[in-house]
Amino acid sequence: MSEKITLAQGSGGVETKRLIESIFAKHFYNGKTQNMPDAAIVQGGNKLAFTTDSFVVEPLFFNGGDIGRLAVCGTINDLLTTGATPIALSCGFIIQAGFDVAKLEVIADSMAQTAKEASVQIVTGDTKVIEPPQNGSSTAANSAQNPQSNIFINTSGIGRFDFEPLQLENITLGDAIIVTGCLGTHHATIQSARMGFSNNIASDAAPLCEIVQSLQCSGVHLHAMRDITRGGLATVLCEIFENTPYAAEIEEAKLPVLPQVASFAQILGLDILHMGNEGNMLVFVPQSSAEAALKIIKACKYGQNAAIIGQVGNVKKPVLKTRIGGTRILRPLMGEGLPRIC
Amino acid sequence: MSEKITLAQGSGGVETKRLIESIFAKHFYNGKTQNMPDAAIVQGGNKLAFTTDSFVVEPLFFNGGDIGRLAVCGTINDLLTTGATPIALSCGFIIQAGFDVAKLEVIADSMAQTAKEASVQIVTGDTKVIEPPQNGSSTAANSAQNPQSNIFINTSGIGRFDFEPLQLENITLGDAIIVTGCLGTHHATIQSARMGFSNNIASDAAPLCEIVQSLQCSGVHLHAMRDITRGGLATVLCEIFENTPYAAEIEEAKLPVLPQVASFAQILGLDILHMGNEGNMLVFVPQSSAEAALKIIKACKYGQNAAIIGQVGNVKKPVLKTRIGGTRILRPLMGEGLPRIC
Repeated sequence: MSEKITLAQGSGGVETKRLIESIFAKHFYNGKTQNMPDAAIVQGGNKLAFTTDSFVVEPLFFNGGDIGRLAVCGTINDLLTTGATPIALSCGFIIQAGFDVAKLEVIADSMAQTAKEASVQIVTGDTKVIEPPQNGSSTAANSAQNPQSNIFINTSGIGRFDFEPLQLENITLGDAIIVTGCLGTHHATIQSARMGFSNNIASDAAPLCEIVQSLQCSGVHLHAMRDITRGGLATVLCEIFENTPYAAEIEEAKLPVLPQVASFAQILGLDILHMGNEGNMLVFVPQSSAEAALKIIKACKYGQNAAIIGQVGNVKKPVLKTRIGGTRILRPLMGEGLPRIC
Repeated sequence: MSEKITLAQGSGGVETKRLIESIFAKHFYNGKTQNMPDAAIVQGGNKLAFTTDSFVVEPLFFNGGDIGRLAVCGTINDLLTTGATPIALSCGFIIQAGFDVAKLEVIADSMAQTAKEASVQIVTGDTKVIEPPQNGSSTAANSAQNPQSNIFINTSGIGRFDFEPLQLENITLGDAIIVTGCLGTHHATIQSARMGFSNNIASDAAPLCEIVQSLQCSGVHLHAMRDITRGGLATVLCEIFENTPYAAEIEEAKLPVLPQVASFAQILGLDILHMGNEGNMLVFVPQSSAEAALKIIKACKYGQNAAIIGQVGNVKKPVLKTRIGGTRILRPLMGEGLPRIC
């Protein structure tokens, strides 16, 4: 096989087949005779969760992950928020001609490893090849004279309901609000990479199956979950409490933030509350279950920094109680934020 | 809303929400209170078909369809080939900043209309915005001084098995091979558009639910189905009969081809057998059911040009019996074919 992706590899003919066999089918092998068919048959359930996400992150490789890990985590976490157990993923690749096959191999391997970590199978896929980028492309990594070919990945996923579906409508006045990890970590990682900063901030991209499934199996009463991605905690809270008579009251002093991310945000004047994660979940539970839930989450690999950050209170809009005793109404992200964070 | 897509509309914040509400949620409304959630809950079945396809067609609008119709048809037809009834689609948009919102609206409407025609709901989606194209982009529509912003669409789909799953392994020596429509029509449409030809060739992009469901409900014995897309009939047949002791014997004289497509192919020296469709299915049935199946297909809206084109015979590789009595071994497409046909 050539070392650069070619338009012929998107033709649907011999070269496409070879690409699928030599990279995707190899990494995503699931023991079936027909590996990665156009449409896969999977074991379902009467009720299913179904989600999709496209990934256009720039750069493709960053501290703590790459576009492949991100693509698998994002879709798995979306399924988990509904209370479903992820069972199968699809992957659709759009690749610019000229893309390094070696990089594609690393990305496919990363997807396979992440899916394995989450006990989910990648069962079907699709590959399209488009023309290479032209000179003068505007993104950071592409600003050189010789622009880099890029890749976009869509992952869609199906989940089965082994437990009751979780819905944001279940959230009740008085619920405790738990966050499973430190805020803004993925955002700070991507922004650092774009700015060429070398630091010790690494993306939190992670599949949160262990956290969610431990909570479900424990019998702790769960009301709802929502992952914190683009737009950050403030945007997510504003969406959740858009049409409710009550809203979140969170406390600045309780928000978990890595010190290096806090410094990074301070230097650049970024608001941690608008910075996204890729492995961080908001969990809403009755107050009576809050401590038990927190203990379970903190015992999980990706939940060690979990914290109870506030509760659902008698306020009309989500508010932040600041360290100095003030109250700030939270607003959703306006404007670009950080394009191509995921 | 601005008339051009902006990077802010991919931020995950306020502008993303407005875009989703003003275009996607409106066109894909399915009666649920939470329209187009990150993950949708759908009614499933114990066994499911699951598929994904990304669409990068160039140009976006062409005789007989557009990227939206194509995206819905492609995924629905992939589900149908497994014998499943399509129940839900997801859509993931990757849009270059600067893309006309009016065009996006037309595309979303086309997706909604096509999904409605096929009685399938679009239940979940995702939107990403990337940088605009730079000068000097190499595709036909982008060759002007001011390159056009583009859009890529992924559709994934779930199907439920109301009937027995169909598998290519069910194909048996002696089976009749039916094609549901004229060969090469979509390919000729796209190539005409790229070359600036004004002719009466229109894409066959269509959801084939009526054909497949009529066959299933009739009780006709079905062995397998496969849609003919990138790579054309020859490539599809080579893939199906790659590891079998028998293969397809098809007859040139029986292949349905529109006269204008035949002329177009002849002028350009294209091989109809390597030209793709977007609404054309190969159907394998026992000889005893062939005429009954053909009659049912021909009674359907998109099956009027259906024909029995050959059978599964005692040959090692798929072969074409030519009009002049010769035999030609079919080869899969090698090389680029027509990039971005779908």
